Amino acid sequence: MGVCLNKFADKVPEPTLRRLPWYLSNLKLMRERGEMYVSSTQISKQINIDASQVAKDLSYVRITGRTRVGYEVDALIEALEDYLGFTRLHKAFLFGVGSLGGALLRDSGLHHFGLEIVGAFDVNPELVGTEINGIPIFHSDEFEKKMSKAQVNIGVLTVPINIAQEITDKMVAGGIKAVWNFTPFRIRVPEQIVVQNTSLYAHLAVMFNRLNFNQE
Amino acid sequence: MGVCLNKFADKVPEPTLRRLPWYLSNLKLMRERGEMYVSSTQISKQINIDASQVAKDLSYVRITGRTRVGYEVDALIEALEDYLGFTRLHKAFLFGVGSLGGALLRDSGLHHFGLEIVGAFDVNPELVGTEINGIPIFHSDEFEKKMSKAQVNIGVLTVPINIAQEITDKMVAGGIKAVWNFTPFRIRVPEQIVVQNTSLYAHLAVMFNRLNFNQE
Repeated sequence: MGVCLNKFADKVPEPTLRRLPWYLSNLKLMRERGEMYVSSTQISKQINIDASQVAKDLSYVRITGRTRVGYEVDALIEALEDYLGFTRLHKAFLFGVGSLGGALLRDSGLHHFGLEIVGAFDVNPELVGTEINGIPIFHSDEFEKKMSKAQVNIGVLTVPINIAQEITDKMVAGGIKAVWNFTPFRIRVPEQIVVQNTSLYAHLAVMFNRLNFNQE
Repeated sequence: MGVCLNKFADKVPEPTLRRLPWYLSNLKLMRERGEMYVSSTQISKQINIDASQVAKDLSYVRITGRTRVGYEVDALIEALEDYLGFTRLHKAFLFGVGSLGGALLRDSGLHHFGLEIVGAFDVNPELVGTEINGIPIFHSDEFEKKMSKAQVNIGVLTVPINIAQEITDKMVAGGIKAVWNFTPFRIRVPEQIVVQNTSLYAHLAVMFNRLNFNQE
């Protein structure tokens, strides 16, 4: 079984990247049950995804199963966590300590999946100088200074929509390379900047619509 | 201009439902700037989405613009908010008051977009009987009793992966019609039950991969 350390070399399709954490969580359950080997067919059955798709997705991780025996559970978990970037901490700054921003600062779960928010920015005088969950809150004006001292390239965007673009522009000018956008606003960035949109409100809209559709 | 109240009659494509909140937030900015009319071309330019796509998306909302004048900003905002389900409160229970669950209870923003979490369940004796952000936390055993008294059909799933399926089954047996799944676990539900997956960790994986891809 070969685990290739040349991770991130390929631009993996987004659907694959979204399925890999499903496999990972299932594998962790198998490990809890004491299982040592798993086949893509087994994963396929448990997750309800075609076995050939599972095998194809796992091929990106450059880990190969052995005929009849399958994948070694421990090794596959390790390879997936490593591949998905969950084993290394990626430092981030958060912008906008409102309701959602504050909630994300309190979510220690992000840390287990490789995101370490090392500081937050806001202009609210009641927040500046305080900390949440051990994370210091600075005045937004201090961003460039803090940026020059820290190895941070991810920005979490949780500001009101009317300043979403302005703050994004400042983040990018300051050297941020990836924006995790929680606002329902479609921000614009230069080509080389990564944007991950996670609009809880858009997800709510989809859920409400499906729910009402089913009930009619 | 006609606003049809027969909302939720169509099963709208998910990409459309995900774009509509973008239009909505842009329209709110326009309203702030005092603009009264907007064309799909204007929306298109601001959001960088093809104008014909914008017009098609908006046609689901059953609101039509007038030639030369376009859409009335106020009416379009109202129609979109109504259509997306943000103007009515949908009651929900949350299951699992860990780090992420607690964070979601504290996020009052969900309320503005139509989700009202009216109670949470956990088994941790330090949490049961307390409340977060005014939302009471009950023992998980009380779910069926609380369910019989409340008009709730949405369940927010923020439990550890090893009990994600078990809790989902209980939710569904108790009458929950839609599960907002924040776990990285792929839950299984009967056909008529709506599942909205929002795995922050899967989004992190995509972002890390793209970031590393750009930096190689």
